[in-house]
Amino acid sequence: MTAAEKLRELGITLPAAPAAVGAYLPWARTGNLIFTSGQLPWLEGKLAYTGKLGADLGLDQGYQAARLCAINAIAQLAAAAGDLERIRQIVRIEGYVHAAPGFHDHPKVLNGASDLFNAVFGPRGQHTRTALGINEMPLDAAVQLSVLAEVVD
Amino acid sequence: MTAAEKLRELGITLPAAPAAVGAYLPWARTGNLIFTSGQLPWLEGKLAYTGKLGADLGLDQGYQAARLCAINAIAQLAAAAGDLERIRQIVRIEGYVHAAPGFHDHPKVLNGASDLFNAVFGPRGQHTRTALGINEMPLDAAVQLSVLAEVVD
Amino acid sequence: MTAAEKLRELGITLPAAPAAVGAYLPWARTGNLIFTSGQLPWLEGKLAYTGKLGADLGLDQGYQAARLCAINAIAQLAAAAGDLERIRQIVRIEGYVHAAPGFHDHPKVLNGASDLFNAVFGPRGQHTRTALGINEMPLDAAVQLSVLAEVVD
Repeated sequence: MTAAEKLRELGITLPAAPAAVGAYLPWARTGNLIFTSGQLPWLEGKLAYTGKLGADLGLDQGYQAARLCAINAIAQLAAAAGDLERIRQIVRIEGYVHAAPGFHDHPKVLNGASDLFNAVFGPRGQHTRTALGINEMPLDAAVQLSVLAEVVD
Repeated sequence: MTAAEKLRELGITLPAAPAAVGAYLPWARTGNLIFTSGQLPWLEGKLAYTGKLGADLGLDQGYQAARLCAINAIAQLAAAAGDLERIRQIVRIEGYVHAAPGFHDHPKVLNGASDLFNAVFGPRGQHTRTALGINEMPLDAAVQLSVLAEVVD
Repeated sequence: MTAAEKLRELGITLPAAPAAVGAYLPWARTGNLIFTSGQLPWLEGKLAYTGKLGADLGLDQGYQAARLCAINAIAQLAAAAGDLERIRQIVRIEGYVHAAPGFHDHPKVLNGASDLFNAVFGPRGQHTRTALGINEMPLDAAVQLSVLAEVVD
């Protein structure tokens, strides 16, 4: 099953790849590597999840926010690669959780992104991860996600 | 216009590439990629901007701090590549903003770096970006910036 | 002296490469680059250092925590490369310090990792570094470390 077929099976329609919120690009390619800019949980032009985990948002909302960031990242990868079948490997994700004092469940939140990459891309979706708690996030977003992928032509 | 000419037009004299503040290198190259270490807003051997955005520093100071980090990063790229014309692409910048509680205008701060890369390198300066708020920064610096660039020989 | 010999001289026995704490891989390779996931200060299955620098832990404990993260990262590199002699260069480390308000000595903490890479790998261990203070760390870990290395076959 292709990534596009898997997305359909999951009921996910990729959005237009979100524009940058500053003087930069949403993705760039060097050699066989695609880097996305930090993806926020945009949904139809609005941030769907704002505030802090451990204060304003529960774990399930954090999981959904990370999943939404991943959907936007996949939209960037589709724009960058032309066809998601050209994504050979999701190499690395950097997950940033907007964390209130005392919040330590970053892994459970970021599994919202990791589970989606694994589901959509199968073995090609397996990736490394760095998980960090951020005190103040751009635009008060709940989660931010950057992705590095290997592409083949 | 070359990057060096553009720097002159902007009235910018590149400093000596700042040394590392620990047991590490200011830049490294692997294949065609140059990674800089995190650059701080050093000016003539002193940190020009310390403290937190949203408490100690205003937006314009943050913008200038990010711009100064970018100038130091360009000095590192010049040292690494020998000639800035060998920089084929600024691939990625990671911008870290020393943020007081409630500060969310990271993009406006980091445009101080992005605008400079775009001005100096033109299309080659267009890059991806990740923007994060940091609660406590090394040496109390206002901004930190890491850069990944592609080089050609 | 090989890296393995140097580890023995330092009295360090590499642990089994720690498993990921979520739906991701502990390391991935793309081309000649190996990325590790964020490494925590695991020791025999438990986090040896939790809490915040500047509140719960002193500088020497932070240094030891960073060193332990580096030992775990070297275990990942050994698993990824098969033989540490195939590590051509430690290109970059990203060091994240769990920081209480007012803590700014990140460089001294992260030298615990940098010093070890330099000692074990010699010139091949010299690396770039980004140092950040994190308000809330996954699992309350004191330090987190991600490593990018170049490998040769």
